[in-house]
Amino acid sequence: MARKRATVPLTIKQVADYLGVAQSSVSRALNDHPDVSDGMKERVRQATHELGYELDYLAQSLRRGATKTVGFVLRDISNPLFADLVIGAGKRLDEAGYSLVLMNSAQDPEQDVGHINLFRRRRVDGLILSLQSENQPGLTELVASLTFPIVLVDRELPKVNAASVVVDSYSGMKRAVQHLITLGHRRIGFVSGSPDLLTTRERLRGYRAALQANGVTEEPDLLRLKSYDQPFGYEQSLDLLRGPAAPTAIIVGGTRLLAGTLAACRQAGVQVGPDVSVVTWDETELMPYLEPAISVILRHPLEMGRLAADLLLEQLEHAADPRTVTVATEYIPRATSMPCRST
Amino acid sequence: MARKRATVPLTIKQVADYLGVAQSSVSRALNDHPDVSDGMKERVRQATHELGYELDYLAQSLRRGATKTVGFVLRDISNPLFADLVIGAGKRLDEAGYSLVLMNSAQDPEQDVGHINLFRRRRVDGLILSLQSENQPGLTELVASLTFPIVLVDRELPKVNAASVVVDSYSGMKRAVQHLITLGHRRIGFVSGSPDLLTTRERLRGYRAALQANGVTEEPDLLRLKSYDQPFGYEQSLDLLRGPAAPTAIIVGGTRLLAGTLAACRQAGVQVGPDVSVVTWDETELMPYLEPAISVILRHPLEMGRLAADLLLEQLEHAADPRTVTVATEYIPRATSMPCRST
Repeated sequence: MARKRATVPLTIKQVADYLGVAQSSVSRALNDHPDVSDGMKERVRQATHELGYELDYLAQSLRRGATKTVGFVLRDISNPLFADLVIGAGKRLDEAGYSLVLMNSAQDPEQDVGHINLFRRRRVDGLILSLQSENQPGLTELVASLTFPIVLVDRELPKVNAASVVVDSYSGMKRAVQHLITLGHRRIGFVSGSPDLLTTRERLRGYRAALQANGVTEEPDLLRLKSYDQPFGYEQSLDLLRGPAAPTAIIVGGTRLLAGTLAACRQAGVQVGPDVSVVTWDETELMPYLEPAISVILRHPLEMGRLAADLLLEQLEHAADPRTVTVATEYIPRATSMPCRST
Repeated sequence: MARKRATVPLTIKQVADYLGVAQSSVSRALNDHPDVSDGMKERVRQATHELGYELDYLAQSLRRGATKTVGFVLRDISNPLFADLVIGAGKRLDEAGYSLVLMNSAQDPEQDVGHINLFRRRRVDGLILSLQSENQPGLTELVASLTFPIVLVDRELPKVNAASVVVDSYSGMKRAVQHLITLGHRRIGFVSGSPDLLTTRERLRGYRAALQANGVTEEPDLLRLKSYDQPFGYEQSLDLLRGPAAPTAIIVGGTRLLAGTLAACRQAGVQVGPDVSVVTWDETELMPYLEPAISVILRHPLEMGRLAADLLLEQLEHAADPRTVTVATEYIPRATSMPCRST
């Protein structure tokens, strides 16, 4: 096993299989036989060229031990945050001579595993992982078995020796909740992704720290933590607003959740701002044109992407040890952080 | 050349190069020499496994002539339209057992060419191309030289035998302009991407058809066709609104342009709706919450993505000829399509 000698010769059979023609046709084409059409000769010539080129490329990659390609597993391309992450990472990697190749997991944690396997099989020099779940069976073992550098984006895999870009979700959340409490709010809803994710756990930790610092008792029913999708934001916000002890403020975990929450407020006949304060994570291009202007907690996705690339490059080019970098967050109160009318 | 025989043997030297250690270390590790640490033995074992696995994978791909991988070149991931395109195509390809791998060109047509080359080198079974420009030097030749199926997304490369998903931009634009003319508008601005793209040419054709059908003279200064970016939308809209013959309506080509146009209206002290009608291409999750509600022309990106995958799969699995499919558009007038106050 250890002395295994794999050989990939470019044979007439392989060219024939590649083209789906008989071996004799390939052989005659290569010998410029008059019975073979010019079209077939051209196809054989091109296939031989393509396959040979590819094998040369692989041989070269093996020699220098690098493909100059980095993979990026995106848990959900429909989250606008990821565009900036990709742009930030792509720009930095491009400057360093690396190509960035993406795969979208469409919110399916099984796809995360499949995509990591594909990137391994197809050989990348490193991987950036924005995972859908930290608890997918087989995930930790798979990532731990990789022999190239890895950067996690706001995720925690305790048994894996990987670099991480971590968002300071704790501070952003704590500041927003503290501000709402100062404005008189006590029942503050929180609608966001699953506590399966470091992101959610850190936000929750900030939420609780602010409550505790102000002697406010946590009400478990105000926490709706399962998904970043618009329908989830709608259903949970509506349920909260129509419940017996409706929140006077809601913090939502992302842009699509926000769209759901705004729809729920309309449906419940509740005015965003005067009737219920709303704070959202992340900003998209149209947010500045919503009336009233929505309070926001920003994490800086371009910067996060750039840092992810940096953490990968320092391992690839300078054999640095993997390390964790924390990205600051910013709470920007706007018109939808209003004094509480009923407490 | 034609009989070239490429060979990729897995040698002790390659394993040593891959690990960055001396050949003698690899040799001793393979012979279970007592002087070699267990860590080194494990690293050699793993590298041999990885490299052997990879060569097996390549050999297998060559044998069956397929990698079950499709590449997608995205001209600009920051355009929210592309998330749905990717999701639509990815779902369909996944059902058919193919993986979708993405590369983002970050609005740089040179990157389009680089990415196509990388996908060719790394072997994909097919490519979906959303190109930044149809006129990038070398592009047509490169795409024409590919030996696997290609699907263009709303682009035209006359010398290339590729399938296409084409948006019926003509009809959507014509309907919107016709409606604005019915409302009394004569000076209708149009801010969008470059006429380098089929998308823009078809929109322009629809714009002109509606003007002509109503005997309205085209004013070249009202056409601002160069980019889909927010700053371009802002600058051009502001310039139009402050010009000597300001438009009474503006049609903008996408979500980021819309954000720029809305900013320009604020800056110019012009009320969107009453003072200037606004129609935009494409909808994002927050658009329904803008006041007043913005008129929109929809193209159906999930459906476009699904169709792109279908057109690729019918070539891959049924050896179908490449063909062109047109996707309908829809004009939805809302509060920002208002009667013209001054003509």
